[in-house]
Order: sequence, then C-alpha cells, then structure tokens
Amino acid sequence: MLQSDIIKPTLLLDKEKCLNNISSMVARARDAQVTFRPHFKTHQSQEVGRWFKAAGVDKITVSSLSMANYFASDGWEDITVAFPVNTREADLINEIAASIKLNLLVESNEAIQNLGKICNSEVGIFIKVDAGYGRTGVNSDSLDLIDSLIDEITKNDQLKFEGFLAHAGNSYNARGRQEIAAIHNAYIEKVGILKKHYSGSFPELIVSVGDTPTCSVMNSFGEANEIRPGCFVFYDIMQQQIGSCNYDQIALAVGCPVVAKHPERNEIVIYGGGVHLSKDRIQEDGIDIYGRIAVQKEKGWEGVIPDVYLKSLSQEHGIVSAPESFIENTNIGDILLVLPVHACMSADLMDSYLTTDGEWIEKRVNSNS
Amino acid sequence: MLQSDIIKPTLLLDKEKCLNNISSMVARARDAQVTFRPHFKTHQSQEVGRWFKAAGVDKITVSSLSMANYFASDGWEDITVAFPVNTREADLINEIAASIKLNLLVESNEAIQNLGKICNSEVGIFIKVDAGYGRTGVNSDSLDLIDSLIDEITKNDQLKFEGFLAHAGNSYNARGRQEIAAIHNAYIEKVGILKKHYSGSFPELIVSVGDTPTCSVMNSFGEANEIRPGCFVFYDIMQQQIGSCNYDQIALAVGCPVVAKHPERNEIVIYGGGVHLSKDRIQEDGIDIYGRIAVQKEKGWEGVIPDVYLKSLSQEHGIVSAPESFIENTNIGDILLVLPVHACMSADLMDSYLTTDGEWIEKRVNSNS
Repeated sequence: MLQSDIIKPTLLLDKEKCLNNISSMVARARDAQVTFRPHFKTHQSQEVGRWFKAAGVDKITVSSLSMANYFASDGWEDITVAFPVNTREADLINEIAASIKLNLLVESNEAIQNLGKICNSEVGIFIKVDAGYGRTGVNSDSLDLIDSLIDEITKNDQLKFEGFLAHAGNSYNARGRQEIAAIHNAYIEKVGILKKHYSGSFPELIVSVGDTPTCSVMNSFGEANEIRPGCFVFYDIMQQQIGSCNYDQIALAVGCPVVAKHPERNEIVIYGGGVHLSKDRIQEDGIDIYGRIAVQKEKGWEGVIPDVYLKSLSQEHGIVSAPESFIENTNIGDILLVLPVHACMSADLMDSYLTTDGEWIEKRVNSNS
Repeated sequence: MLQSDIIKPTLLLDKEKCLNNISSMVARARDAQVTFRPHFKTHQSQEVGRWFKAAGVDKITVSSLSMANYFASDGWEDITVAFPVNTREADLINEIAASIKLNLLVESNEAIQNLGKICNSEVGIFIKVDAGYGRTGVNSDSLDLIDSLIDEITKNDQLKFEGFLAHAGNSYNARGRQEIAAIHNAYIEKVGILKKHYSGSFPELIVSVGDTPTCSVMNSFGEANEIRPGCFVFYDIMQQQIGSCNYDQIALAVGCPVVAKHPERNEIVIYGGGVHLSKDRIQEDGIDIYGRIAVQKEKGWEGVIPDVYLKSLSQEHGIVSAPESFIENTNIGDILLVLPVHACMSADLMDSYLTTDGEWIEKRVNSNS
C-alpha cells in the first residue's frame, strides 16, 4: 500500500493480520470441537470469503437474504441467514433455496406459517432463542412455546428443523475476560439445557452460538456445537476495549486525508465522517471516542498514537483531538489511519478494500441491505 | 406507493411534500433577497435535483468532489464544494473545473499553496470562516489571518477569491425559534462585519451562510447574500425537535418489514438497522430515540403514532418500543414507516427512492463518498 494510492477516504485492509485472525479462529473452533460458521456480514467480500474457504471453511452466516445471494453466487453452498426471516422476500428465498442449503431463523408460529405458505424448496429452520441478551428470540426457558414452534415446523414438508440459534450480544457490554466469561457461561448453560432436552427427539440438533468477544477468549462452548463470530476477521477498537483482541490484531483502518488544522484548540480536521466510519462510539473516562489513529509503518500500521483520537463526526468531517506536537508534525494532505470503533459498520459503508499489498479488493456495495 | 412494492427496507419519498419544501424555501430566499444555493448532499439524486431546477435553482452546494462530478454530469454548471478542499483530488478538481464553475473552500495558506500548484483551470475560492460553531474554519475575528489568506489567493491566476462561507452547525443544538434566532443573530452579525470590511476591495463579495434550522425560521440574513440549506428538502424528526418543521412536512421515511413481536417487553423487531437509518439519535426526557413511526395513509403518511419509537438499532435490527394495543394490531410482515432522525445520513445509505406515486428514483450510491 502506498500513501499515494489514497486520494480520499479509503478502506484499508492488512491482509496478513486478517489471515492470522482467520487461521487463529479456525484453530480455536477445531480445538473446541465446534463447527465454525463465520459471519460474513463484517467483510461482505467474495474475495475475503475465499480466504476463509482456503482455510477449510465451508459453512457461513450472513445477515440478509441479498447477502446470502451474493455469497451463493460465489459457490457457498451452506448459508444461514441469522436474522428473523423476512417473509416478504419469498421470491429470493425460493431462488436461493433451489440451489443451496439455506437456513432461516424463526421465533413465532406466525412466521413459520408464513414460511410454510411460500417455500417451494426445502429450507433449514433454526429457532432463535434469547439466552439473556433481550434483543430478539424466544425466551430459552419457554419450553411450551418452543414445543409449539417445533410442532409447527415439523408439520411442513419444506421446513426442516435444524436446532437453536442464540446470540450473546450483551458480551459487547463486557470489559475484560472475567465479564465476558460471566455472560458466556450464563447463556451456554441455558442453551445447554435446550440441547439436552431436545436431542433425544432430534439427535442431529445444532446449537449455534458465538459472538466475537466470547469466541475470542473462551475455550469451551459446552453443549453448543457451532460458533458464528464475524467481527474477529478485522477486529476494531471496540473489541480491543472489550478485551477480545489487542491493537496489533486490528486488520482494518480507514485512510483519511487531513484537510485542516486548528492547533489553538488541539484539533485536526480530516476528510472522513459518519458516511465512512458510521457513528458508533466507545467511551473512555466519560469521553466519546469515534476512532483512534494508528501508528503508520512502511507497510501497514501498528498500535495507536497516544492521546490522539476522533472526538466527533459529521457527514464528511472527522474532528481529531491531538496534542500540539502531533499537529505540528502533520501537514494538510497527509493521510491519518483511523481504526474504526465498529469494523462491521464501517466496512458496510465502503465499496472496496485497498490491501497493504497494494491490491484493490471488491466488496458488496450496500444496496438497501 | 403500494405496500406490496416494499419487500425489504426501502427509502420512501413523498414527492408532494418534497416539492412543497423546495418551493417554500425558494420563496423564503426570494423574500430575503439572497441567492439560493441548496445543499444537494441530502438527496444525492439527479432526479430530485431536476425538481430544484424546475423551481428556478441554478447554483448548488455539495460536500465532496465526487458528488460535484455526479451533478456536473447532469448539467449543473455552478457548484460549491462546502468542505475544506482535499488537494489530493487534483485530477478530479481539474476535470470538473475545466467544464463548469467550481468553487472550493480553504482555511489555510498551506491549502491555498497546494491548490495553486495543482489547478490548471480557474476555480472560485471561498474562505471558510468560523462564526461560532467551532468545527472548522478561520475565526471570523482574525482579520490579519484572513488578509494573508486573501493575499495568497489573489497571487494566483487560477484562484478567484469569491468570499466567505460560514455554517452555523450549532443551530442543531437549538430547540425552538428563540434559541435558533440567538445563534443566527450572533453569527450573522459576525459575517456582516466581514462583509462590510472587505466589500470595498471586493464589491462582488459573496457571504454564504445557512443551515436548515436558521433558513426555515429566520426571515433576514443581514449582510449575507447566499444561503445553502440542505436537509429541508426532506426534513426529519431532529428538525422537528429543533423547531424547523412540523411532522407533516417530513418527506422521507424508511419502510421496514416487521419480523418479530415481543409483547411481553412492549417491543417489535423490524428489518431496519444502522445500515439503513444510521445511528444518529435524539433524546426526549432522557430517552434515546432512533426514529419515530408515521401514521400510514392511503397515499403516504401523516404525523406520528404516539408512544411508538425506535429505541435501539444494531446492524440490521431495529427495536421499536410500542404499547400493547399497537403490537396486538401489528402482524409479522407488516410495513412500519420509520421517520429517520437524520434524513441526510439515512438517504446516504440507500441506493434509490420509491415515491408515494409508485415511481422508483435513482440516487448516487455511496461509493467511498
């Protein structure tokens, strides 16, 4: 990657770090004896997908039917859409399910009945269970409701009950291994009860779990037999704050040109705003942080520059807070490497990656998801 | 617009409200005797641009050079890029300036010198002044610095000094006409001093101001002779909270399918998340609000449903807080019409509009801005 390749905000990918993140998670899944079904919503790139394939991965997770279609068209043949099924997309469901193994998510009899009416090829069905996060899913304790959902699914020839899917999104509120472990253990126990309860009737039952924080630091998934982390492929400064990674594992940055300097208020203005980085933020000592600035190396980046961070974002502007000495050594037109708060959201906004090897990689452009 | 046209999150445009917003702002500018140079970053659509042209507009504002290029290719011949110039985009600057009147923004000698080296066609130059917002620009009181910038500009044959550009972005913190007026009057006074000071040497001097809140409620712009509001073309619930508009002027909504219901915690899950709506939020009584739900009419929408609002967003999920009675009357697969918090950010994320007349309108897809 050459600085001269960056003329406006550009999504930068350190391929070596990314490949390390992939192979490390492949090894963790193998050691824990669980199926690895990575979430591809983070990178949304067929090319990056092929790096997973080269590492032995053959099952993936996505967050929309159009994303499933994008990856199916590149040869992926076993895809779970980890989002409560939108039955308005009947045509696309049937188109994809006609050629690959498509797994969908339900959490109500209403959705199952809708699906039953529209599906003309077999689809795998997971019941979304809520094991403590409280965003979506059937309460994992509600066995009567779960029984009725399974009954409804198995009534229909085109719907094949596969198992349960849970997401411990509350692990994003954890800070440090101990807090991650507490959340992990609580929900692993809950889904373990489900597994034991239903595996008599369904010996092939899949219990799918796994977000980046828990998959990055926990070594056992109890009764669960599949994990679906996504963000780990790039990591970001939120994951660093949670304790999932260190700065040197972060494989994604946004290269942003400096357009103005205001030493009198310790600020630099970059071309790089909410339309490039999204407005996710972390807090440190009560201060909102929208990104940190990495130390540039001849090839790529390493660590972060102390006391330099993105303090606010508008549509295209980013305001960087920085000490006087840093501002003095920065010129208009320089490129700052911003490590985003949330890699998934930032990558979603951009249309290609420039790797540290100088290669441009295409990705799916957000087209109304 | 038919509900059946909406199969996944879809950007909806009430053309009639939009045309009213345009003609109303055209009339306000005419009455205030200022040039109307609307900001097109909000809609980013050549088609919507033509509605402005039909209303007599011939000068526009954009926020990036690639956006300038997009509108120049549809016949716009006088475009201001209201963002501190990114001199790395020299090729695009020269390409656009070769065929239309292109105005750029500077706030340092360094940027002017960089521009001087790269420009091979004439470009108009505005000095960005900070009249109280504190995001970017030269302090409007720093006459010595402004003198030196004008000297640097006028030294160069290709750079034509046009005037001063200010943005009272702090008006977004105002609530109600009185607070808007206080911010407006303070910065109009400051830019008025500049106008008087420099118009002897530059009789054609332009002083460009104007954000949506001040342009929506103030009737006079003092010495300023150009306004650049953008968001007013659609308005949004942040503008409603500020006091720039009422709910019935909001011309933009995102149609989102219902995918799950959780009456036990007064929640509905919609397919519509941060990748569709952006994560901008307003607060009311200490509660974060990421969108409100409009009342559906046979054609379009009107007002908002009381006590129903988007309480959180993740990548694709939106969690709607709603009373039991509303949830009971909502089915999986129904469409909710979400009025976004920030129309500019939400429109930026999507690739087309569906009008209330059932017409699909293309827009610029965010391609790394």
